[in-house]
Amino acid sequence: MVIILKQNHDQKQFDNLLNWLEGLNIKTSLVKGEQSAILGLIGDTSVIDIDMLKAVDIVQSVKRIQEPYKAANRKFHPDDTIVDVPCPSSFARQIGGRNFTVIAGPCSVESRVQILDIAAKVKESGSAMLRGGAFKPRTSPYAFQGLRAEGLELLYEAKKETGLPIVSEIMNVNHIELFSNVDVIQVGARNMQNFELLKELGRLDKPILLKRGLANTIEELLMSAEYLMSGGNKNIILCERGIRTFETYTRNTLDLSAIPLLKELTHLPVLVDPSHATGISRLVKPMSLAAAAAGADGLIIEVHNDPSHALCDGAQSLTPEAFADVINSLNGILPALGKTI
Amino acid sequence: MVIILKQNHDQKQFDNLLNWLEGLNIKTSLVKGEQSAILGLIGDTSVIDIDMLKAVDIVQSVKRIQEPYKAANRKFHPDDTIVDVPCPSSFARQIGGRNFTVIAGPCSVESRVQILDIAAKVKESGSAMLRGGAFKPRTSPYAFQGLRAEGLELLYEAKKETGLPIVSEIMNVNHIELFSNVDVIQVGARNMQNFELLKELGRLDKPILLKRGLANTIEELLMSAEYLMSGGNKNIILCERGIRTFETYTRNTLDLSAIPLLKELTHLPVLVDPSHATGISRLVKPMSLAAAAAGADGLIIEVHNDPSHALCDGAQSLTPEAFADVINSLNGILPALGKTI
Amino acid sequence: MVIILKQNHDQKQFDNLLNWLEGLNIKTSLVKGEQSAILGLIGDTSVIDIDMLKAVDIVQSVKRIQEPYKAANRKFHPDDTIVDVPCPSSFARQIGGRNFTVIAGPCSVESRVQILDIAAKVKESGSAMLRGGAFKPRTSPYAFQGLRAEGLELLYEAKKETGLPIVSEIMNVNHIELFSNVDVIQVGARNMQNFELLKELGRLDKPILLKRGLANTIEELLMSAEYLMSGGNKNIILCERGIRTFETYTRNTLDLSAIPLLKELTHLPVLVDPSHATGISRLVKPMSLAAAAAGADGLIIEVHNDPSHALCDGAQSLTPEAFADVINSLNGILPALGKTI
Amino acid sequence: MVIILKQNHDQKQFDNLLNWLEGLNIKTSLVKGEQSAILGLIGDTSVIDIDMLKAVDIVQSVKRIQEPYKAANRKFHPDDTIVDVPCPSSFARQIGGRNFTVIAGPCSVESRVQILDIAAKVKESGSAMLRGGAFKPRTSPYAFQGLRAEGLELLYEAKKETGLPIVSEIMNVNHIELFSNVDVIQVGARNMQNFELLKELGRLDKPILLKRGLANTIEELLMSAEYLMSGGNKNIILCERGIRTFETYTRNTLDLSAIPLLKELTHLPVLVDPSHATGISRLVKPMSLAAAAAGADGLIIEVHNDPSHALCDGAQSLTPEAFADVINSLNGILPALGKTI
Repeated sequence: MVIILKQNHDQKQFDNLLNWLEGLNIKTSLVKGEQSAILGLIGDTSVIDIDMLKAVDIVQSVKRIQEPYKAANRKFHPDDTIVDVPCPSSFARQIGGRNFTVIAGPCSVESRVQILDIAAKVKESGSAMLRGGAFKPRTSPYAFQGLRAEGLELLYEAKKETGLPIVSEIMNVNHIELFSNVDVIQVGARNMQNFELLKELGRLDKPILLKRGLANTIEELLMSAEYLMSGGNKNIILCERGIRTFETYTRNTLDLSAIPLLKELTHLPVLVDPSHATGISRLVKPMSLAAAAAGADGLIIEVHNDPSHALCDGAQSLTPEAFADVINSLNGILPALGKTI
Repeated sequence: MVIILKQNHDQKQFDNLLNWLEGLNIKTSLVKGEQSAILGLIGDTSVIDIDMLKAVDIVQSVKRIQEPYKAANRKFHPDDTIVDVPCPSSFARQIGGRNFTVIAGPCSVESRVQILDIAAKVKESGSAMLRGGAFKPRTSPYAFQGLRAEGLELLYEAKKETGLPIVSEIMNVNHIELFSNVDVIQVGARNMQNFELLKELGRLDKPILLKRGLANTIEELLMSAEYLMSGGNKNIILCERGIRTFETYTRNTLDLSAIPLLKELTHLPVLVDPSHATGISRLVKPMSLAAAAAGADGLIIEVHNDPSHALCDGAQSLTPEAFADVINSLNGILPALGKTI
Repeated sequence: MVIILKQNHDQKQFDNLLNWLEGLNIKTSLVKGEQSAILGLIGDTSVIDIDMLKAVDIVQSVKRIQEPYKAANRKFHPDDTIVDVPCPSSFARQIGGRNFTVIAGPCSVESRVQILDIAAKVKESGSAMLRGGAFKPRTSPYAFQGLRAEGLELLYEAKKETGLPIVSEIMNVNHIELFSNVDVIQVGARNMQNFELLKELGRLDKPILLKRGLANTIEELLMSAEYLMSGGNKNIILCERGIRTFETYTRNTLDLSAIPLLKELTHLPVLVDPSHATGISRLVKPMSLAAAAAGADGLIIEVHNDPSHALCDGAQSLTPEAFADVINSLNGILPALGKTI
Repeated sequence: MVIILKQNHDQKQFDNLLNWLEGLNIKTSLVKGEQSAILGLIGDTSVIDIDMLKAVDIVQSVKRIQEPYKAANRKFHPDDTIVDVPCPSSFARQIGGRNFTVIAGPCSVESRVQILDIAAKVKESGSAMLRGGAFKPRTSPYAFQGLRAEGLELLYEAKKETGLPIVSEIMNVNHIELFSNVDVIQVGARNMQNFELLKELGRLDKPILLKRGLANTIEELLMSAEYLMSGGNKNIILCERGIRTFETYTRNTLDLSAIPLLKELTHLPVLVDPSHATGISRLVKPMSLAAAAAGADGLIIEVHNDPSHALCDGAQSLTPEAFADVINSLNGILPALGKTI
């Protein structure tokens, strides 16, 4: 950590600062210029609250040199983490490494027929896991909030029928028990900084799929992973799903440069959700290919069942046929990228 | 609601759409142009999921005409809501109308001495209520997480001593009982779309201070208020506290135009938090005055105790003296704006 | 400037770096920690290209300590700049200090009758100067591009009739001569980084009103002022007019915290344009008051003539009556803020 | 175009509106609901200024149905435009269709030796064209502004030696003649809405590479292309180069979803600049692959010469070896995407 001191700072306050740092076992080294002075801090600076330091009168600014996350930091864990998805009644899966994991399914679980039908179809196309929303975060209190516990039951049935491990989103610390048959628990973008929820999920060892919040930086995503990991859970999967920008054509702006950056900063696997990011089904295929080319470890894609039987479904969902075409195109480029579905 | 249909749309799908709308008791009227057709919907369109409609093949786009919120909508409640803050052991307060309510206190409750000292000082300067964080949402799991239940106890002591009603932030649905002595429960920016928490708080009738999330639109803020109100709680206070933009000089960008817009769209009172929005104590005074001039119903300001006794405090906090100066300057312009502290 | 060096950096590259810095007359001081080393630079670091430095292999990051602008920097010119607007045929004006300068007029000059009518009305209400667009930057090539040279002629007529100095926007280096009778030349948001235009305007000594670009930081605004000032023109007036964010309710998000920040960083006067920032005429009054309360030196407001004679005008424009009401309300709070119109 | 009228609107104003629309040869059709009325407009609505319409008292909001661009619109020109780059002394090139065009070269032309060396190397690796900055848009007036006319001369020499067509950025309408030997004129992000420059370039028939501004929407990019095309120049190449967001890890956020969207909305070819977008050389390879996978027609990449001979170069530039590796990896996936370098 480096502290830039104000010009002509008060000597007594400076001594106070040095004493305080000494008490924290931090060594310092001062460089004096004509217009300012620079204080270099040496030691474990993770104990320092950077906002507190900035508030000291004689401090002009503070620059952190080391990343504030440890468990998630690739510097301390150079090898890629491969997350095991143990699944008693079905295929076990590994996320990361040379695997390219495709997770597919409907936005919401709507009925037994719907979820069993989609599950069978996405499995046939090559999906490794089944996703489906049971608890739905909806902007409006008047919108459908999901089938809740019943939705989880139906997902579990689909898992028993197809053998596909299941992924579903949690929104409430009190629901953890309901998710006992869910193989990967998803933390949605809106809950990425629901720290109370993260702390509880950190006590499990079940894989957690942590989505980036729509106004959250890459560093904040890693700090939320750190909440989960500092609790003991090492099975964390990150997911880029678009950030909020001024562009309104797409629902959010998919930040694919986050993939190679995350790969550099952390050892955790990184998935991409092109469906929610763009909100437009026609963009799911090109952005899936782009995510793979950028180095993602897999995708989570919305697929709805036969549109001739339902009036409507999410504007961002693919038909099973369109999904099969995405998988097909992915298979065209993955070998050159050193990965396989 | 207006549906723009694609050019040369399939007649059968169009009939399906009309039937579906009819089933929802929605009347329609079609306007045909050369390049497109427009379907006007008449009736209670709040039952329609706009994303579902957009996904229908023959639909080009959909435009909502009515706001999706009702309880919070000024159209249906033209008069300003004035939120009563009943406070048995102390001054009752009203937020809204001609009152300009200043809430002040430290970022975190740190000790008995600290909170009692600040409480006495901000009361003397004219603060109507005391704020203090007991449960702290911190980006890092290694940062101080607040005194939690003990912090609420200390706040309660300060309330008994000074008579000031207290405001504190909740982060977990399971903590509601702990907040029984808190007069106004704050929902922080990161939890603005924690819908499970909002649903529970909607069952209370205790005033809720709902902060705008840092990537949330004004409409989303009102939809979150609607979650609270649709549960039965009418005592909602909104709070603008800055949004995330590309500008890094300030922590966030305080969106003061949100105040007159919210005043137009809703009958709920609107406060402003200049401390968290800017993250710079020197900006608290000018932005407090600006918020008052823009029509805010009050402010929530961070004040820390005597800096000579503590090395550090938040870069965004004022000393009690600087806070008194803010109040003094506010008193200079509030009469011309028709408000009083 | 502080350079953070990578762990275990190559000694030969480090020596190269030191030699290069020495050649620039920069002294250095090294602080070695366990995980990194910090190199403090002392001397005139404004000659260093920070992007080049960041690209050196052994460099982890670079932090500038001094602001990269000099002529615009308050550190080197502590007193407020007051910009004189000499205006032979009319009232001379001063912008800055205790003056609160209101500039008003139509978005576009449309006809002789229109501009003379508005000019008379805004003068009566208390406007100090007349604005009007002759060259209009329009997103669409098919939209009205302004009356161009003829528009400037009509503005000049209005100046001769009313004595109000005139402000108009320039878009092309080749038009400078056409602006000889314009008292303040405006550089619009889209041209804030049209460096070739800035260089030419820097050779004049006519006052320049420089608007912040909609994706530009405060520092970039000051660097563009520096372009003008480094050419010799000291008469620069800054203008905040909203930045582009995710919020779509308003056209842009007016960043009023930029005012006190700019006042701290620079000695130049700062105006605010609430009309373009919000794009909604109903918000002009509250945001004008807020801008004044935040410390602005004045406003630039769009006013259109009698709406009963014209079907339409900009959604962001006030009627002369509404404008008079804004001035009236400003007069209510300005004395307490130490300013007068 | 659809106009949403306010509740209980004044009949006389409504009649005025209808008369005005009739005068523009626009037919209307009214749909009346309980809470609002919808007026559908039929005919050529491109003559209507949408901002003016929004300002009419009785209008609540206006929704455009047709895109405001024509020449650039794929609806009216379904086939892909392939831009010919005629180059007398060298290889002619075509951009678009099944060609994947890689343009490479240094950020700035610095010397004869530098540009000839890089030109030879990027040609050998498979670059189709040479880029190099002669006029440099720099945030600081004190930074190197490019070799200007001399830089263009050196580029021309490199073109004569290698046969590579050359691309360079223009910043001033008065420089067009200097660019007579430049094969593709680049309009940089900061000048995307320099409409006076666009108008002049629209009179040429030389290919123009138009970069997206960092706060500009996809629609605004297409409107700027429309400026060029409405002047008669049909040889327009679009370029995505990142937008400004809250994320500070990368210089900008590369918006790759813009590629498939642009491909849908327009017939013009689309390139991507991963170097400027990310500002980090390590991200150029993954983002180049991702851009190709998302459907781009090519790339523009910064390459600097041997770093052992120069202390510094842009943090975003690749060495010639790293560039060759990018080309090599692109060749691994392009066949599956139906394109070739």
